[in-house]
Amino acid sequence: MSNVENALLEADRNLETATAKLFDLISIPSVSSDPEGKPGIEQAARWLCDELSGLGFEARVVETEGHPLVLAHSTDELSASRPKLLFYGHYDVQPVGALEDWRHAPFEPEIVEEDGVRRFYGRGASDSKSQLWTFIEGLRAWKTAYGGFAGKVTVLLEGEEESGSHSLPAFLTAHRDELACDIAFICDSDMWSPTQPALSLRLKGLLHEKVTIFAPNRDLHSGFFGAVAANPIRILSSMLADLHDEAGRVTIEGFYDGVEEISQTLRAQWRALSDETDLFDKVDLTGGIVEHGYSPLEAIWGRPTIDFNGVTSGNQGPGERSVIPGSATARLSFRLVEGQDPENVRRIFQRYVRSRLPEGCTVAFEGFPGSSAVTLPEDNPFVTATARGLAREWESPTVLKGSGGSIPLAQQFKEMLGIDCIVIGFILPDDAIHAPDERYDIERFHKGVRSWVRILDEIQKA
Amino acid sequence: MSNVENALLEADRNLETATAKLFDLISIPSVSSDPEGKPGIEQAARWLCDELSGLGFEARVVETEGHPLVLAHSTDELSASRPKLLFYGHYDVQPVGALEDWRHAPFEPEIVEEDGVRRFYGRGASDSKSQLWTFIEGLRAWKTAYGGFAGKVTVLLEGEEESGSHSLPAFLTAHRDELACDIAFICDSDMWSPTQPALSLRLKGLLHEKVTIFAPNRDLHSGFFGAVAANPIRILSSMLADLHDEAGRVTIEGFYDGVEEISQTLRAQWRALSDETDLFDKVDLTGGIVEHGYSPLEAIWGRPTIDFNGVTSGNQGPGERSVIPGSATARLSFRLVEGQDPENVRRIFQRYVRSRLPEGCTVAFEGFPGSSAVTLPEDNPFVTATARGLAREWESPTVLKGSGGSIPLAQQFKEMLGIDCIVIGFILPDDAIHAPDERYDIERFHKGVRSWVRILDEIQKA
Repeated sequence: MSNVENALLEADRNLETATAKLFDLISIPSVSSDPEGKPGIEQAARWLCDELSGLGFEARVVETEGHPLVLAHSTDELSASRPKLLFYGHYDVQPVGALEDWRHAPFEPEIVEEDGVRRFYGRGASDSKSQLWTFIEGLRAWKTAYGGFAGKVTVLLEGEEESGSHSLPAFLTAHRDELACDIAFICDSDMWSPTQPALSLRLKGLLHEKVTIFAPNRDLHSGFFGAVAANPIRILSSMLADLHDEAGRVTIEGFYDGVEEISQTLRAQWRALSDETDLFDKVDLTGGIVEHGYSPLEAIWGRPTIDFNGVTSGNQGPGERSVIPGSATARLSFRLVEGQDPENVRRIFQRYVRSRLPEGCTVAFEGFPGSSAVTLPEDNPFVTATARGLAREWESPTVLKGSGGSIPLAQQFKEMLGIDCIVIGFILPDDAIHAPDERYDIERFHKGVRSWVRILDEIQKA
Repeated sequence: MSNVENALLEADRNLETATAKLFDLISIPSVSSDPEGKPGIEQAARWLCDELSGLGFEARVVETEGHPLVLAHSTDELSASRPKLLFYGHYDVQPVGALEDWRHAPFEPEIVEEDGVRRFYGRGASDSKSQLWTFIEGLRAWKTAYGGFAGKVTVLLEGEEESGSHSLPAFLTAHRDELACDIAFICDSDMWSPTQPALSLRLKGLLHEKVTIFAPNRDLHSGFFGAVAANPIRILSSMLADLHDEAGRVTIEGFYDGVEEISQTLRAQWRALSDETDLFDKVDLTGGIVEHGYSPLEAIWGRPTIDFNGVTSGNQGPGERSVIPGSATARLSFRLVEGQDPENVRRIFQRYVRSRLPEGCTVAFEGFPGSSAVTLPEDNPFVTATARGLAREWESPTVLKGSGGSIPLAQQFKEMLGIDCIVIGFILPDDAIHAPDERYDIERFHKGVRSWVRILDEIQKA
C-alpha cells in the first residue's frame, strides 16, 4: 500500500476522534464582532494553538490590536526544495442573531440523522470551523502516514474574518518573512454541488459602509412636526431606493468606471455551468432584481453590486410611538469586481449621499478599509494540481468558478506579500451560513479531510 | 374678597405642596406601551385614586383588558341644574428610549433653575402628568374656597393614552351614564406661546400601521445571493420613498378623497397667527418637506400626512454582517383631517403596499383601530367661557387653534357619547415631549392651576 493510501486510511480511522474535536471547537462561542465574544475568541485561539502544537508544529498565539491569530510552522519537512504551502482558515464566527430563530442550540453540536445524512448544527459549523478542521486533520493524516511534510507547511488561523479582518494588514506586514510560501490555500469557500468540488479563481472585493442621517433636531413628536420637519427615515429611504434604477443597475455616478464586460468566453463557460448548478435549489430567487442583461450566475460572479444589510431608526419597541426620529442608519456592503478601487467606490458613494442630503441635515459615515477583487489564472500549476486532487477524491471534475463572496485576505496576500491564493472549501448553499441553524455533515467533513490528502499528494507528484 | 379671589389665593398658597405631590406622581414610571411598565401603571392609578378620594370625590380604579382608568365623581355639588363638567387627563407616559440620551434622570424630578426659570425634567413632566395635575389642584383650590362645585364634576384619568387607548371604547360604552356631562375638558394640549393661552378646536385623526415585508427566504449571505435574491430593505425603502411625490403630496390613490380645501377665511386667520407664532422657534424645520402650496401651520393643522416613526431590519449589532435580511419592518402613522375614514385609509395604504410587493414576497400588517378628526364650533358657549377664563389668567387673548396631534378620546366622546370636548393645556414646543429630557416649569404649572379656577368662574357666571 502506498503512503497516500495509508494517509487516506488514517483519515478514515481517525474520523470519530476528529469529529469529537471539531465539536469541541464549535462549542466555543468565538463571535468576533461582539465585545462579549472576546473570551470565546481567546479560548478558541488557545485551543487551536494547543492542537497544532500537539501535531508537532511550532505554534503560537499572536496578539493584535483586535483579535489574535494562531500561527504555526511545521518542524519536520523532508526537503527544503519542495514547495512551501500555507493553509489559512478563520476560527471566529458570525453573531447568532435571535436565539428563538434557531431550532438547534448554536454552540452545542451533536450528530442529527436526517434523511440518511448525519448532520450537525451550530454557529461556525460550516463557516468556517469545519473547513479549517478539514485541513488540520488532513495534515495530521498525512504526517502520520509519511512521518513529515514534503516542504515547509504554515498554518494561519484568523480570529476576526467575520468582523472585517482589521488587524490583518499590520500582522501581514510584521510577519512577511514567516509567511513566505509558494501558494496559500484559503479554505473558506464552497462546493459546486454536493457531489462536485470547486475552486474559486475570482473573488469579489468588499466594502462595508454604515451611513447615519441626522435631522436638525433630536426626536420630535410626529403629530406636532410630522408634516413639516425633516424625517431621516424618509430621507434615507429615498437614498436607498434610488441607488438602483429599474434595470437593477447602480445609479452612483462612476460606479462602473473601469469595470470590464464579462468576456464572451467566460459567459459561455458560465452558461454551461448555469444549466447544471444546484446553487439556487434551496434559495428562492423570486422577487429578486438581477441586473438586466445578466444571468444570476453572471451577476453574482461578474457584476459589482450594492447590498443593504441593515436599517435602524426610531421606534424599535413593542408599542406605538409617535416620533420623528433624530437619526436613521443604514448598513450597506459593496461587492466589487476587477477594475474597481474600494476607496474610490466609498468616495463616490459618500458623494452620492451628500448630494442628496437636505439642507440642515448632517451625515456620518463609518467604515473600514475595503478590499479589491482578485483573480488567479486557470493554468497556474498549483491550481491544476489542486483541481486534480479534488477530482480524484470526489470522482467528479473540479469546477473552476467565480464567487460572489469576498476574502480580503486573498487580496492582501497578493498585494502585500505577492502570494497567490487558491480558494477552496466544502460549504453548500443550504448550509445556512450567517443564518440560524447553520449546519454541515459528517460525510462532507470526512471527504474534506481526505481531499487535502489527495491535494498534498498531487502537489508532491507535480 | 370674592370667592374666586380666595380660590386663586388658595392655589398660590398651596403651590409648594402641589409641586411636591406632582413630583411624587412623575416619579412613578408608568410607561404604558412596555409590559414592564405595568407595576408603575398600577401604582400611578392607585396613587391618583387616593388623591381624588382625599379631595372628597367618590373615586375608584376601573380595571380594563388593558390598563386601568381612574374614575371619580364629586359628591358636593351645590346645584343639580348647573352644567356637568368632565375633566380628562392621562397618567401613562411614553417609553424613555435610550437612557444615555437623558441629561436628567427620567423619573427623579427636582427643581432646576435655568436662566431664571424653575424647570423640572422627567418623562411625563409635560405629557401629561403636570397637565392633569393642574386641573386636580384647580379643583382643590376651588373647593377649598367655595366648599363645593356648582354642578357635578367628574374626573377621568386614562392609563393607555400613549399606547393607543385600546380599552377606552369598551370602557366608554360600559360607563355611558356615569360619564354624561355638558362639556368635557381634555387637558393634554399646548399653549400658543409661553405667554399666550390656546384652545384646540380641530384635532387630527390618527392611524398607526406596522408593516413587515418578508422575503421568500430567511437571512441569506449577501455575498452569495445579494446580486440576485429579493432584499426586503430595498423593497421597503422603495415603498416608503414613493409614498410622497416631489411636491410633498401623498401618492396613495384615494388618500385625499373627501378632504376639503382649507377655507380662505381659515387660511387668513392662520396666516395672521403664523406671523407671530413661537411654535417653530425651538425646532429647526430646515430640510423638511412641507406639502407645496401650504404654510407649515396649514400643513400641520389642515392637511393629512403620513409620518415614518421607525424602521428595523437586518444587522442591528455593533459589527458588520453580510446578510440579506429575511424581513424588514416600518412603523407609520397617518394624521387625518375631516372627511377621511381611518379604516378606509388603512385599506388603501395596504392596497398600495400589496400592489408594490414583488412576487414571492409576503407582507404582514399590524394595527389598532384608528380615530377620525374632530372639530368644535368657535361659538360654543363653553368655548367662549373657557377662552375668557384663560385670557384673564394669562392677560392675553386665547388663540382658537388647530392641532397636528390626535386625541382618540375626543373622537370617541363625540361619536359614542355625543359629548363635545374642549382641548386645552399648557405644553410648549420645547418641552421635549416624547423625547429625552422632557420638561415643564413651576411658573407655568402654577398659572395652569390658576387657569382652571378662572375657567370654573367664567362657566359659573355664564
